[in-house]
Amino acid sequence: MIGSARLRYYATLMRVVKVPLGDRSYSISIAAGLLAKLGENCQRLSLGQRCAIITDRNVARHYGKAAEKNLAAAGFECVGITLPAGETAKSLATVQHCYQHLAQHRLERKSFIVALGGGVVGDLAGFVAATYLRGIPLVQVPTTLLAQVDSSVGGKVGVNLKAGKNLVGAFYQPRLVLCDLNTLRTLPEREYRAGLGEVIKYGIIYDAALFRRLERDLPKLLKREPRVLAEVVARCCEIKAEVVGADEQEAALRAILNFGHTIGHALEAISGYGRWLHGEAIAIGQVAAAKLSSDLAGLPAGDAERIEKLFASAGLPTEIKLGPAQRKKLIAAMKLDKKVSGGEIKFVLARRIGKVVWGQRVSEDLIDQTLDTGPNSR
Amino acid sequence: MIGSARLRYYATLMRVVKVPLGDRSYSISIAAGLLAKLGENCQRLSLGQRCAIITDRNVARHYGKAAEKNLAAAGFECVGITLPAGETAKSLATVQHCYQHLAQHRLERKSFIVALGGGVVGDLAGFVAATYLRGIPLVQVPTTLLAQVDSSVGGKVGVNLKAGKNLVGAFYQPRLVLCDLNTLRTLPEREYRAGLGEVIKYGIIYDAALFRRLERDLPKLLKREPRVLAEVVARCCEIKAEVVGADEQEAALRAILNFGHTIGHALEAISGYGRWLHGEAIAIGQVAAAKLSSDLAGLPAGDAERIEKLFASAGLPTEIKLGPAQRKKLIAAMKLDKKVSGGEIKFVLARRIGKVVWGQRVSEDLIDQTLDTGPNSR
Repeated sequence: MIGSARLRYYATLMRVVKVPLGDRSYSISIAAGLLAKLGENCQRLSLGQRCAIITDRNVARHYGKAAEKNLAAAGFECVGITLPAGETAKSLATVQHCYQHLAQHRLERKSFIVALGGGVVGDLAGFVAATYLRGIPLVQVPTTLLAQVDSSVGGKVGVNLKAGKNLVGAFYQPRLVLCDLNTLRTLPEREYRAGLGEVIKYGIIYDAALFRRLERDLPKLLKREPRVLAEVVARCCEIKAEVVGADEQEAALRAILNFGHTIGHALEAISGYGRWLHGEAIAIGQVAAAKLSSDLAGLPAGDAERIEKLFASAGLPTEIKLGPAQRKKLIAAMKLDKKVSGGEIKFVLARRIGKVVWGQRVSEDLIDQTLDTGPNSR
Repeated sequence: MIGSARLRYYATLMRVVKVPLGDRSYSISIAAGLLAKLGENCQRLSLGQRCAIITDRNVARHYGKAAEKNLAAAGFECVGITLPAGETAKSLATVQHCYQHLAQHRLERKSFIVALGGGVVGDLAGFVAATYLRGIPLVQVPTTLLAQVDSSVGGKVGVNLKAGKNLVGAFYQPRLVLCDLNTLRTLPEREYRAGLGEVIKYGIIYDAALFRRLERDLPKLLKREPRVLAEVVARCCEIKAEVVGADEQEAALRAILNFGHTIGHALEAISGYGRWLHGEAIAIGQVAAAKLSSDLAGLPAGDAERIEKLFASAGLPTEIKLGPAQRKKLIAAMKLDKKVSGGEIKFVLARRIGKVVWGQRVSEDLIDQTLDTGPNSR
């Protein structure tokens, strides 16, 4: 009886979001303690016996052994590949390092890769899985807020070039995403807040009620209160699953997920991927996009203020001081964005909170003005 | 009247093979002089204005300028990327070099890549197209016999690792394949004969009538007689299109295209990709596979002899002398083949000429015996 009661308790807390993509559909499971069910979940997917756990040094310290033991207990043979932490590891050199390990350990077409970590690990391990032997199965175990609500879901994988972020990659869906909310407990405060940058984005682009909830419950969320966190993570995953299910390869709707990313990515690129966390760069990008939205897309000034205020309350940067030369460099970097078409920089702009439009032309002058936060700016 | 008569003449000689893959379907056009129609063909595909021609030094010398001028005349802006010739260029280092060029020249998602060259260029440029900005359009202009009948069709793209051939790659279909038979005129004799290694394969795996025709018309084919060449290239493309259309990602049937490739790829890997051309390595591999087929799959001894004889008549190697240590190395390399499953090496074997079976287990001992062509061999 106790066993059954516990099971029910577990089932109540576990949220499952389906990503509907035909024969490439998969589930995102969200609950506290899911890492302890990794092996059992992999067993259900009829994968090969061998796997590689790709992770980074920080995550390995906390969860590497647990993941490996759990997979081994389920009968899998694991090889661990531990990368340096941080965005600079998201390079072709690291990809090559991974390939060599996989070949050395004789991973086969049915062998699989477990991406255990944040966005960098997930994107990189996903690209390795997409291309090794022309594609082997991928299991995402995101351990950061940003990876749980965004990068582990939807199949965008890739690495950076010196010329820009995510310029090399593929669309490659995982077979399963396991979000263990317990792993967020060890997340450094700065990284946790950076994840909120993507969480707030879902409110702006798709769900005014979520945005209002974030305004109301932000203090609880900042305390990582389990119940609020579970609900918010699940809602973000639902939104992402809906968008990706409707437009996997970003022919149209999926572009809305890039709100704030045109400026954000460029900012990361010109600062060498070290200075800003992704969530921080896109917070700055989203506040700038909100200003452009007020100018060009009819976003009420009050909404733009609420957006700026929510990012600030989450402890995220909302503007950056750049001289004219740096702004020029930033705009040049934007032109390398994957969304550029015919040389024109295209933006996602908000009409109101919860409703955006994509593919909007914005002149370089206006971008420059918006980024100019100096004493003589508008 | 003359114009119209010429057009009809051209239309008679042009063969078009469709590769049926739903919304990723495309045509293979086969005719003499098609390079002069490259720009016009690209115009029909509603691609972006910018493109990159990826080629190698040998091909660039003969056809680089013609391709570039033709595309420019059709209104496209081209950047040329010329690689060293040969299999050693098919590496991640070369891929990275290409990415840097594409970024520098601001190629966008609708920009496209023209792969102008043989199998190495097509595989590498295809992988670059599959992964740059998560995939940009690809046009294949194969200039070798091997590339025209095999590697440019079907969407397998990729590069080699030190550990093995094509261990990194993707399934990525071109938007168009243009086979200009005139480009085969400048092909060195050795490379032309290597291409016949794949041509003969189609007879063995799928079409006994093609095999008989090759036995009969080999002298004409060796003289590169245009009419025979056009018919044979078109038939090979038809077979490949049928097989790929039925099983794009090699879940089953497509595996038959790997006849002779398990040993062939391993041979290329252990000799550092320099000694044997791909077509030569798979000629050796196919003769060995025919011997294994006689032992294990009921291939009549007479058919095995016809197979060996046809390769020999085409001027291709049919066996290789390896000491015990080298044979061991070869078998180890086979275990890194993408077709390995559960550590077992799987073969495509022939029941008779024109009919093969795939996924056949072959013991290491028997492989070793078959490869042992020394005085004490069976």
